[in-house]
Amino acid sequence: MSHQQHDNTWRLLQDHLDEWVNLSKAHTSEGHVASYIPELANASPDILGICIMDSEGNTKVSGDSDFPFTLQSISKVFTLILALMDNGEEIVFSKVGMEPTGDDFNSMLKLELVEPGIPFNPLINAGAIAISSLIKGNTTDEQIDRILHFFQHIADNPSLSINQHVFRSESDTAHRNRSLAYFLKDNGVLDGEVDDVLRVYFSHCSVEVTCTDLARMALVLAHNGVDPIRKRRLIPRRFVQIAKTFMFTCGMYNASGEFAMNVGLPAKSGVSGSILTMVPGQYGIGLVGPALNRKGNSTAGVHLLGILSQEFDWSLF
Amino acid sequence: MSHQQHDNTWRLLQDHLDEWVNLSKAHTSEGHVASYIPELANASPDILGICIMDSEGNTKVSGDSDFPFTLQSISKVFTLILALMDNGEEIVFSKVGMEPTGDDFNSMLKLELVEPGIPFNPLINAGAIAISSLIKGNTTDEQIDRILHFFQHIADNPSLSINQHVFRSESDTAHRNRSLAYFLKDNGVLDGEVDDVLRVYFSHCSVEVTCTDLARMALVLAHNGVDPIRKRRLIPRRFVQIAKTFMFTCGMYNASGEFAMNVGLPAKSGVSGSILTMVPGQYGIGLVGPALNRKGNSTAGVHLLGILSQEFDWSLF
Amino acid sequence: MSHQQHDNTWRLLQDHLDEWVNLSKAHTSEGHVASYIPELANASPDILGICIMDSEGNTKVSGDSDFPFTLQSISKVFTLILALMDNGEEIVFSKVGMEPTGDDFNSMLKLELVEPGIPFNPLINAGAIAISSLIKGNTTDEQIDRILHFFQHIADNPSLSINQHVFRSESDTAHRNRSLAYFLKDNGVLDGEVDDVLRVYFSHCSVEVTCTDLARMALVLAHNGVDPIRKRRLIPRRFVQIAKTFMFTCGMYNASGEFAMNVGLPAKSGVSGSILTMVPGQYGIGLVGPALNRKGNSTAGVHLLGILSQEFDWSLF
Amino acid sequence: MSHQQHDNTWRLLQDHLDEWVNLSKAHTSEGHVASYIPELANASPDILGICIMDSEGNTKVSGDSDFPFTLQSISKVFTLILALMDNGEEIVFSKVGMEPTGDDFNSMLKLELVEPGIPFNPLINAGAIAISSLIKGNTTDEQIDRILHFFQHIADNPSLSINQHVFRSESDTAHRNRSLAYFLKDNGVLDGEVDDVLRVYFSHCSVEVTCTDLARMALVLAHNGVDPIRKRRLIPRRFVQIAKTFMFTCGMYNASGEFAMNVGLPAKSGVSGSILTMVPGQYGIGLVGPALNRKGNSTAGVHLLGILSQEFDWSLF
Repeated sequence: MSHQQHDNTWRLLQDHLDEWVNLSKAHTSEGHVASYIPELANASPDILGICIMDSEGNTKVSGDSDFPFTLQSISKVFTLILALMDNGEEIVFSKVGMEPTGDDFNSMLKLELVEPGIPFNPLINAGAIAISSLIKGNTTDEQIDRILHFFQHIADNPSLSINQHVFRSESDTAHRNRSLAYFLKDNGVLDGEVDDVLRVYFSHCSVEVTCTDLARMALVLAHNGVDPIRKRRLIPRRFVQIAKTFMFTCGMYNASGEFAMNVGLPAKSGVSGSILTMVPGQYGIGLVGPALNRKGNSTAGVHLLGILSQEFDWSLF
Repeated sequence: MSHQQHDNTWRLLQDHLDEWVNLSKAHTSEGHVASYIPELANASPDILGICIMDSEGNTKVSGDSDFPFTLQSISKVFTLILALMDNGEEIVFSKVGMEPTGDDFNSMLKLELVEPGIPFNPLINAGAIAISSLIKGNTTDEQIDRILHFFQHIADNPSLSINQHVFRSESDTAHRNRSLAYFLKDNGVLDGEVDDVLRVYFSHCSVEVTCTDLARMALVLAHNGVDPIRKRRLIPRRFVQIAKTFMFTCGMYNASGEFAMNVGLPAKSGVSGSILTMVPGQYGIGLVGPALNRKGNSTAGVHLLGILSQEFDWSLF
Repeated sequence: MSHQQHDNTWRLLQDHLDEWVNLSKAHTSEGHVASYIPELANASPDILGICIMDSEGNTKVSGDSDFPFTLQSISKVFTLILALMDNGEEIVFSKVGMEPTGDDFNSMLKLELVEPGIPFNPLINAGAIAISSLIKGNTTDEQIDRILHFFQHIADNPSLSINQHVFRSESDTAHRNRSLAYFLKDNGVLDGEVDDVLRVYFSHCSVEVTCTDLARMALVLAHNGVDPIRKRRLIPRRFVQIAKTFMFTCGMYNASGEFAMNVGLPAKSGVSGSILTMVPGQYGIGLVGPALNRKGNSTAGVHLLGILSQEFDWSLF
Repeated sequence: MSHQQHDNTWRLLQDHLDEWVNLSKAHTSEGHVASYIPELANASPDILGICIMDSEGNTKVSGDSDFPFTLQSISKVFTLILALMDNGEEIVFSKVGMEPTGDDFNSMLKLELVEPGIPFNPLINAGAIAISSLIKGNTTDEQIDRILHFFQHIADNPSLSINQHVFRSESDTAHRNRSLAYFLKDNGVLDGEVDDVLRVYFSHCSVEVTCTDLARMALVLAHNGVDPIRKRRLIPRRFVQIAKTFMFTCGMYNASGEFAMNVGLPAKSGVSGSILTMVPGQYGIGLVGPALNRKGNSTAGVHLLGILSQEFDWSLF
């Protein structure tokens, strides 16, 4: 993209972002805040905030951009990257596959039905739990510390921390995730203790961020692993490529195909109503809108990204 | 059945049971001892023993009839009965259904696919775990005690006890059962703590018996809940009816239909290679043959019951 | 059963059958007439009729016992028997299994998921279509003639015939059955042409009968293949045994377990609202009540059989 | 891409394409020629040919680039586009979804399990059959003619025609596709007669092409619907975007995720061993290598595209 294009984009965002956010905010009423984790159920459904960051760190923000929220499934992208950095592709892909599933994010059907019973990809819950078990560390605490530091490093924000209320809330209620984990254990996919692996998993899901943090993290992916601000490579390019491919094919739960069609960018959503996405080579984008549609994605957030993608012709295809 | 018939049966058993056991023993080599519970894997594959008990407590035994083994899934029949006695039909059938599944005994497919996500019947693992949670008791230990005493009572054998080696072996390795239990917890089927419920479940699976104990327990079912020896009703008739119906339609895992066709008696098998069955109104039968066929039933045991059913025209149809 | 018992039963039926039919009729409003075959949708939902026939051919009838209806799935029992008589057990059970499925009667899941891809049993649609293909005959017409004559022979009613309106209605609308048949063809289960096999299948489903015909046919099964009136063996005993076993485990669609629990007799239902059942060794029973419950069985009919089973302690267990 | 880059690419292809083709040819022995359509089974397994076309129509070819083959599933991309041009997005996406499935290309599971029972996407068989039914035309012949002319138009080759041997071979043996089509009919997805729709479907699968034709067709997609040679828009850009998105997420059967990871280009494969892919904005690529891997894609072809993608850094991510 030329400077000219960037200037145009930036000016249009200046003039219209608030308007587009307001337009999208009308769609919050179509969704519902996630209730299966009690602590998440407290979020106000009509929140919508966004931050777009360019490669010099300039930002355009609108709406509730200071609202803090937990990463939830967005964390899966970065634990996948860390697991790849810790273990390499061969080990990682002996534990999880590369294919979209078409099933719900917490489905166990394919674990039972499809040999060899490994999760189809690292972005469904089963896959992300398997990935959590691969993070290096002599103890569970060390694994969690390494993940947190990695997230802080990517976000360039040493104050990122785990929201302990959300962590406990998840940990107390996540029977389905325990079920998944024991199934994986039975299939020989998990090496450690289920309780330890889940502590790692719930911890990285519970890291608290803002839209600006998300945009900052996305910016590194948008630049293939090189932080354009610090001008340093933080992640090997191949691992970013892997992460972005998964985000494109499976990042938005089983509405990933629809999102690819209508927005056309690699993205990952979380049940906190958050979405991390990026314009490759250019912008990092973070947003939050806790009211979710039936597939588990932020209703207003998906709508807003649809507007932006159309206005700026951002679809990869 | 007339006395005449009984005398004939008894004489033929006297003359031929050893021969039929030997014939069936040849089929032990077609099966394999269960390996998923390490302690069970130690059983010798060529064992075969049987005990047939008439309504006066006379027995015909043959083969390794003294071999001790754990009840495993056979216990599910009696915990179902105790749960019915503790709670009544309405509560029990709000937690488990009445239908055969056609799936493996540890399958989770229907829990995910079929509303309302309760186990299809009390004899698959998911159902039996749900039933374990329904046994009355102020503590888990009290639940286990009540079950053990009930089993002792039915078997008229106060020395029945839990094989602690098998219990620990099951408890340490049963990841799939934990997965099932957490899935049930997530679906709202289990009230208590998963660890507690599984302790109850593994305990009753680990009660050690002999063929004679099985035959004695079966005799009570054969007489619709009245012990013909002690001449006392031990179980309300309706609950025996329920138990026997389930044994007929789902008692032999997903080979229940084939067994119904070829033997035609209510029966329940366990992965210890044990089978409890009965000739209604007449005999209680217990057998053990640890080598299992692909569906999880004793190869030699099924063969032997096929011979007996044909010789004595025991099929209900 | 003693003569005394029979006399008592017969007297109670004389005195109370109308009352029980009326009681049950109240339940017709809970169900809905099958709509997927247009011709069936015309039946009046508040019809309920029953015929009970003893071994001398005496009958107790009540309600709309003259109402003519088509056999639908009840015919599957008799085509199974004819296929067994034509081919023997080995060939028949190379094409269909012996197990209940827990799935809907027209489900294709297990054909895709469970090797070797043959229908689980002959009473689900897939199985019954496979059975239709096994009926001997040089032409499709000859197959259909042989089936019709067999039905007439069992029912002792040479005027039984195919209702051509229903046949055409089924044939025109049964896309799901065509789908099943082509799946079977692909799995190598069907030898003939799909259109021919389905013509056989729809023909035997469309044979029109009354409750008295059903009771007469059931009487032959109740007496293990010997017609107690004509005093002739019409079916080898083993094949009746097979049929009754399937009726008990899979005869009432995926409510077979519940029916076994609450009525406890071998039975087969059809979407015309008909049920054929029997008291082994004694009575043949036919009924019709077109309003169906969610599982596809006559609501009022199931209710009425529940009353009868309880009053006369007819459950096999 | 600059001219400089293009010149470099072209020179490297000049120097190395034969070598890469030979390297990849070694992998033909790992696969098997499709056998389920008899006419396809005749193809020689060690064939491998490729054509790469630039935006001026210059080509680099190597291997068996003249080998004629049928489009098979590749045709689905272009019937989807024609259906979109004929009906618009709204109608098309009322009949098929937008999501990858994770299941086999001919699976029926999700049609039965997931409401509302429409195919998950237009590139699995069920979806493509639904799409075939949407092609405008007063008669089936007219539908087929319109498709053939559209293919000829895109390929700029008026001599493209239907291979009647393959058409008949498919038509005679495709029981599974008939099963799928009747299931769709039952679910209300197909309007026309199944036989007619399948005639359309088998016809477009049987259009015979060479690698050069594929490359030519791909070139139009690579340029978002504008033919860079004829300098005319042939397809609205949005519909190309839709097609390419589906190719990226579901184009290589249930190995689409793996292909996206290792090659990273929108592509569509066919059981003839053919693959159509493109470098967006630049090249159209067609290849054929009939030996298929377990997932149904050309073993050698996938290998060759992996080399090219790595050498030229063609992955979109």
